[in-house]
Amino acid sequence: MLTRADANSAEVTSIVELMAETGRKARAAARPLAIASPEVKTIALLAMAEAIERREAEILQANEQDMANGAAAGMTSALLDRLKLDEKRIAAIATSIRTIADLADPVGQIIAEWDRPNGLHIERVRTPLGVIGVIYESRPNVTADAGALCLKSGNAVILRGGSDSANSSRAIHAALVDGLEAAGLPCDAIQLVSTTDRSAVGEMLKGLNGNLDVIIPRGGKSLVARVQSEARVPVFAHLEGLCHVYIDGSADVELARKIIVNAKMRRTGVCGAAETLLVDRLIAPVHLAPMLDDLIAAGCEVRGDEEVTKLYGKANAAMEEDWSTEYLDAIISVKLVDGIDGALDHINHYSSHHTEAVIAEDRDVVERFFNEIDSAILLHNASTQFADGGEFGMGAEIGIATGKMHARGPVGVEQLTSFKYRVRGTGQIRP
Amino acid sequence: MLTRADANSAEVTSIVELMAETGRKARAAARPLAIASPEVKTIALLAMAEAIERREAEILQANEQDMANGAAAGMTSALLDRLKLDEKRIAAIATSIRTIADLADPVGQIIAEWDRPNGLHIERVRTPLGVIGVIYESRPNVTADAGALCLKSGNAVILRGGSDSANSSRAIHAALVDGLEAAGLPCDAIQLVSTTDRSAVGEMLKGLNGNLDVIIPRGGKSLVARVQSEARVPVFAHLEGLCHVYIDGSADVELARKIIVNAKMRRTGVCGAAETLLVDRLIAPVHLAPMLDDLIAAGCEVRGDEEVTKLYGKANAAMEEDWSTEYLDAIISVKLVDGIDGALDHINHYSSHHTEAVIAEDRDVVERFFNEIDSAILLHNASTQFADGGEFGMGAEIGIATGKMHARGPVGVEQLTSFKYRVRGTGQIRP
Repeated sequence: MLTRADANSAEVTSIVELMAETGRKARAAARPLAIASPEVKTIALLAMAEAIERREAEILQANEQDMANGAAAGMTSALLDRLKLDEKRIAAIATSIRTIADLADPVGQIIAEWDRPNGLHIERVRTPLGVIGVIYESRPNVTADAGALCLKSGNAVILRGGSDSANSSRAIHAALVDGLEAAGLPCDAIQLVSTTDRSAVGEMLKGLNGNLDVIIPRGGKSLVARVQSEARVPVFAHLEGLCHVYIDGSADVELARKIIVNAKMRRTGVCGAAETLLVDRLIAPVHLAPMLDDLIAAGCEVRGDEEVTKLYGKANAAMEEDWSTEYLDAIISVKLVDGIDGALDHINHYSSHHTEAVIAEDRDVVERFFNEIDSAILLHNASTQFADGGEFGMGAEIGIATGKMHARGPVGVEQLTSFKYRVRGTGQIRP
Repeated sequence: MLTRADANSAEVTSIVELMAETGRKARAAARPLAIASPEVKTIALLAMAEAIERREAEILQANEQDMANGAAAGMTSALLDRLKLDEKRIAAIATSIRTIADLADPVGQIIAEWDRPNGLHIERVRTPLGVIGVIYESRPNVTADAGALCLKSGNAVILRGGSDSANSSRAIHAALVDGLEAAGLPCDAIQLVSTTDRSAVGEMLKGLNGNLDVIIPRGGKSLVARVQSEARVPVFAHLEGLCHVYIDGSADVELARKIIVNAKMRRTGVCGAAETLLVDRLIAPVHLAPMLDDLIAAGCEVRGDEEVTKLYGKANAAMEEDWSTEYLDAIISVKLVDGIDGALDHINHYSSHHTEAVIAEDRDVVERFFNEIDSAILLHNASTQFADGGEFGMGAEIGIATGKMHARGPVGVEQLTSFKYRVRGTGQIRP
């Protein structure tokens, strides 16, 4: 008779083996995928979009089951909204796949080329990364976006969605496999991990015996933190977007007012939302109050340092922890600083290296802001909410990275590639 | 009274603290370094080259001490030769620093730029990586090359040389610090780890509390293997260069003979040296023997598969392990294959993803070789020994990487940079 411990251990062994097998299959699929022509990949993507539409009823039914399970488990309405699919959202998934199909194929692009005095011609050419692991939570559309972006960039992908959206993801995945089959590409190019056991994630973090080249976590801070601290393979991610807006003394104040409200309030839950406003002490006496009035009128809570609360009675007092808090909510922390130097000191101390904006007319101030802050995205006279692959013209993104290696800022199809050198000679030998 | 265990534990604590402090100092130095002008960095590099020449006697004396210690410890003559400095080698170190000074400054270079329909202008700009750790063995010139390349690319560097070359490295490091001082740059921008205790390496592999952005190991396979398996930060390295040369049936045989001798025998100890020769079965009956005669005449041992030994009596029998052995010596393994398909199968199975060459006149063969092999460097009708940053026109390299992330192939100053986005607006807000 099997004891409970035996059963658990057998289950764990089988998940280790299941994930190892998933990795081997992905690696095997990666080679034909890497050399698939742009036309074949486009055929697959268009067939996927069609299959999403054709399987609409099935996907909605699967999603209803997830929604019912979620409601029964006491999921919050915000989470249920993320999980929910309807006809409009399914149409958006198909549109998103078609947008990705229309992008330029990055594989084989010559990034640089030059000649050497000995006649060698050197080309640096984009190649796929290999096998990408995507670990995500409840948004079922990530299944389609991640699958399509990885295919476009010639990578095999292992998708590990949250258990909350398991049925929806499975139904969407079936449509992606339809597309692969229609183009004669290996089905293992897009695999969905079938177990909802959490140890599957642990196996991915260990790298599946070298069969996983990069991991992209999509979800809340605790997921990203776990992946970043435990992964033995490179990770493209951002832990938080603690974005700053600095209003310089030289700013066009009307423009500044418009931008800060947009940067904070357009959507408060996105990583590009502003969390801290820094205002040049020079202009605070006259211009601080109207700016903060705008924010309060838009429904935002203002938390200021001592100077701010003195100047502006409607501000609550900010604590030290406010300067390092990503609210993702209708709250902003506000501080007066001594011009660009004060702004640089604050941002370089508290930044999460995601996105920061400077509002200024003084060119020297702008150049110092651009040069002396080491964040993925720096903006001048524009809203931090432009921190997005679509807004950058990348067509679609799988996320935003704040690391310094390989991919930084929005991660689109180009960022999902590596490169190699092709050297063309005519018999050169090295002296 | 302190017990032996107490003393050991105090020592270890002090190394942990020493390395943590080294990391903090490097991070602090990285900010002024990142914004140092190209001119200031050039002043520093030229002053370093001068200081190397001025301190020649001192460096030679330190090196004599290392050589004496090495000889007393029974170091092999090959290792002693790597360690040895003389006037010519010191002059070469100074020249190498001047070459790096002359390179284009990568920091601030605009890699790409484009406009968005809403008027935003987006620039992707090169930035330093931050803090680089270089772990190396007995070659004292790595101290100077690594220090100069990291400075040129705006990075702080922590150098951890082998204990064998500790005195030489210390003397060279003093000259580098002279250069930093002459340019008014922080001395902590180039730090040499003063302890020869091995646990210092362990601390670097753990990442010095986030103060180390990338590690570059320079040395033998066991060092690289340890760094690759234990490092918690990205690593730029290659474990081995198991380079292949494939001679297609369409090859210009005279050209092939010249290249294979050069690829194998120019220098047998470098990572770009050929280790396996694959010959199209079609041309073997006529052309194999003359090719192998050339190699044997050049002093090379030939190890062939069964077909090769049958066709060519002077070949020894190759074992299975020969196909995965990087000899770094005057030995070559030789195998007949069924054209390009056979070559692709063999290389994709055994390659270390470093460098491979195809000798062929048939364009389709060349394109398949270029497309279907995922190695950092692929060459057509040229020797594998061109796998080198200098030969690529990068001026100097800190090593060759075979990973797919960030840096691949020769790692020069550009590969030691990251990037960020600068977005210039005129008041854009996101709808």
